[in-house]
Amino acid sequence: MPVNQNELSTQQTPFLLIDHARFMRNLTYLQQRISERGCALRPHLKTLRSVDAAHDMLPNMNSPATVSTLAEAEAFADAGYTDLLYAVGITSNKLERAAALIKRGINFHILLDSLEQAQAVTQFGQKHDVVFSVFIEIDSDGHRAGLAPNNPLVVEIAKHVHANGAQLTGVMTHAGGSYSSDSVDEIRAAAAQECEAARNAAEAIRAAGVPCPIVSVGSTPTAHFAEDFTGISEVRAGVYTTFDLVMLNLGVCSLDDIAMSVVTTVIGHNKEKNWVLIDAGWMALSRDRGTASQRIDYGYGLVCKDSGAPYEGVCVTSVNQEHGVIALPATHTVNEFPIGAQLRILPNHACATAAMHQHYMVLKNTDELEVWPRILGW
Amino acid sequence: MPVNQNELSTQQTPFLLIDHARFMRNLTYLQQRISERGCALRPHLKTLRSVDAAHDMLPNMNSPATVSTLAEAEAFADAGYTDLLYAVGITSNKLERAAALIKRGINFHILLDSLEQAQAVTQFGQKHDVVFSVFIEIDSDGHRAGLAPNNPLVVEIAKHVHANGAQLTGVMTHAGGSYSSDSVDEIRAAAAQECEAARNAAEAIRAAGVPCPIVSVGSTPTAHFAEDFTGISEVRAGVYTTFDLVMLNLGVCSLDDIAMSVVTTVIGHNKEKNWVLIDAGWMALSRDRGTASQRIDYGYGLVCKDSGAPYEGVCVTSVNQEHGVIALPATHTVNEFPIGAQLRILPNHACATAAMHQHYMVLKNTDELEVWPRILGW
Repeated sequence: MPVNQNELSTQQTPFLLIDHARFMRNLTYLQQRISERGCALRPHLKTLRSVDAAHDMLPNMNSPATVSTLAEAEAFADAGYTDLLYAVGITSNKLERAAALIKRGINFHILLDSLEQAQAVTQFGQKHDVVFSVFIEIDSDGHRAGLAPNNPLVVEIAKHVHANGAQLTGVMTHAGGSYSSDSVDEIRAAAAQECEAARNAAEAIRAAGVPCPIVSVGSTPTAHFAEDFTGISEVRAGVYTTFDLVMLNLGVCSLDDIAMSVVTTVIGHNKEKNWVLIDAGWMALSRDRGTASQRIDYGYGLVCKDSGAPYEGVCVTSVNQEHGVIALPATHTVNEFPIGAQLRILPNHACATAAMHQHYMVLKNTDELEVWPRILGW
Repeated sequence: MPVNQNELSTQQTPFLLIDHARFMRNLTYLQQRISERGCALRPHLKTLRSVDAAHDMLPNMNSPATVSTLAEAEAFADAGYTDLLYAVGITSNKLERAAALIKRGINFHILLDSLEQAQAVTQFGQKHDVVFSVFIEIDSDGHRAGLAPNNPLVVEIAKHVHANGAQLTGVMTHAGGSYSSDSVDEIRAAAAQECEAARNAAEAIRAAGVPCPIVSVGSTPTAHFAEDFTGISEVRAGVYTTFDLVMLNLGVCSLDDIAMSVVTTVIGHNKEKNWVLIDAGWMALSRDRGTASQRIDYGYGLVCKDSGAPYEGVCVTSVNQEHGVIALPATHTVNEFPIGAQLRILPNHACATAAMHQHYMVLKNTDELEVWPRILGW
């Protein structure tokens, strides 16, 4: 895609750049894949935490979406979005803000996986006259939170919620284990397992006489490779909007699908060591080393020209707060990277890199740069 | 130190807490150590990037300080601070903002280690009628940027700066290699090497007839253990204000010197696996794994009670964006960590953890909570 180098080159580095054409292509692909299979897409807004991005990601203001913090929920509600799942286990200290969202008319859904949480929710709801919409978290692969689908607590919690003035809206699971897959076949297997776990939990709840309208699954890898969504209502995915090097290593995207980079300036050379120093350290790139345990280790990110064309095998090899070091392979010399030149660094993990920035520069079409602010805090 | 649990427990988690009594004790210790040895302390403000913290860290508005970004320099200048060293190699695209600081009367110092940079600086200075104050960066341990003290370029750059309308204010080096020391003796050796490198560079410049008034050294480890500051004007240090688990492992501080923690709430249990889930993931703790290669690996942080008392051997073992997992050792059970309970997590690397927050809660004396905003961006 054509780049207006003049406008980009006058920006103060480091900054985060989004290639809007790639971003839109990624959105369209998954939206189409999921709707062709009869499911709704409930995008996770946590990667960019941007109202501007949500305008592209969500078909309308009532489209389902996922958030990772109450701060996001409040900001997206302020922007007019009405269907938000807060996908982190709820605790009592957050119920007041959750209730406030419901009272202003938001279809705000909370998540739990224990009877203690369920009791805290129903007690608060009855005391403050608010009907909480609840998802029960199901553990499909043992990687984090949730209850095994056949754990009797799933039905017990559903019954408690249903009988005590809250609404059991659904079950959800996240196949986070799919991030450590070694092949697309393994991702497909993780997807099948994820769908089965969620389906089984929903069926157990329904068999106990409690309605369970929504069965929600998803992770970016499984959303791209799941083959059978029987019984599934909706699919969640987050990092698919920009992808990253972790997703590249997993085979979920190709290099030219990656829509996020950090633009940086060369600030020095160490000629003896064949090192290029840049003004992007972990403050701009993040400390994420997600590719360290994968097929190809990209250090702190893959180095690209200011046009976006990647240098094969050239990575940011170490970082301090505001310094990055590119230890060049013997096939390159520092003279190819003059002091003052701009480079782009593709991120290991887009969520972590975006989290280091308060806004993003978004390159649209040939010459338009937009600024998208990020929603900050909790 | 007494804690008003009520006030702390009503804060929305996760949040970053600073124990002000420990913070002040850390400041006083290093300030006294350095002034007793006849040097000035030029604190690095990059860890907290907070004007409120600077008020405690700097004796007066003209005290020397160090910053890692132009955004910090501008914000501290706005707050009235007048002597700021920007300790990242300068490039042409940043000279306009640097010049603006000088034109408003700030003693703003820039850093360089190449003739290309020096020429860009003097050309810009002559064209725009501004006298840049320059430090030359010296490499004392091969870990990052800078020129070896005996590299003829040191003198060549000094002469160029001096002859072309800029001011050669000094030389500086940062013994970043001291962070990978295995003992206090190694830190002492790194400190001696750091001072010698800076001294030698300054002497070479002076022997060539160019004044070099300031000889600046420092890193938190070397600042605490250097024994001989002969010929050194000033010492820089940053993370000493709050310390962290990396500094604990290095033997630079003790556990009860650590003045920063992330306050979090227990959001779930996995009883089968003996896991406690908390609402602090890498968004609140950072992805920094600085202790991974050290004596004791603290995972993503050491777990403490809400009073601040540490649980020996209990760490955050894995993180996602907004989830932390504490895989308990067999000596503990999840029942000791009820859902809804608050915990504090001590950080691996205070700079990285602070960078994830937009403000800090500061606990002063027995019951006063202050909010310190962080300066954001570049």
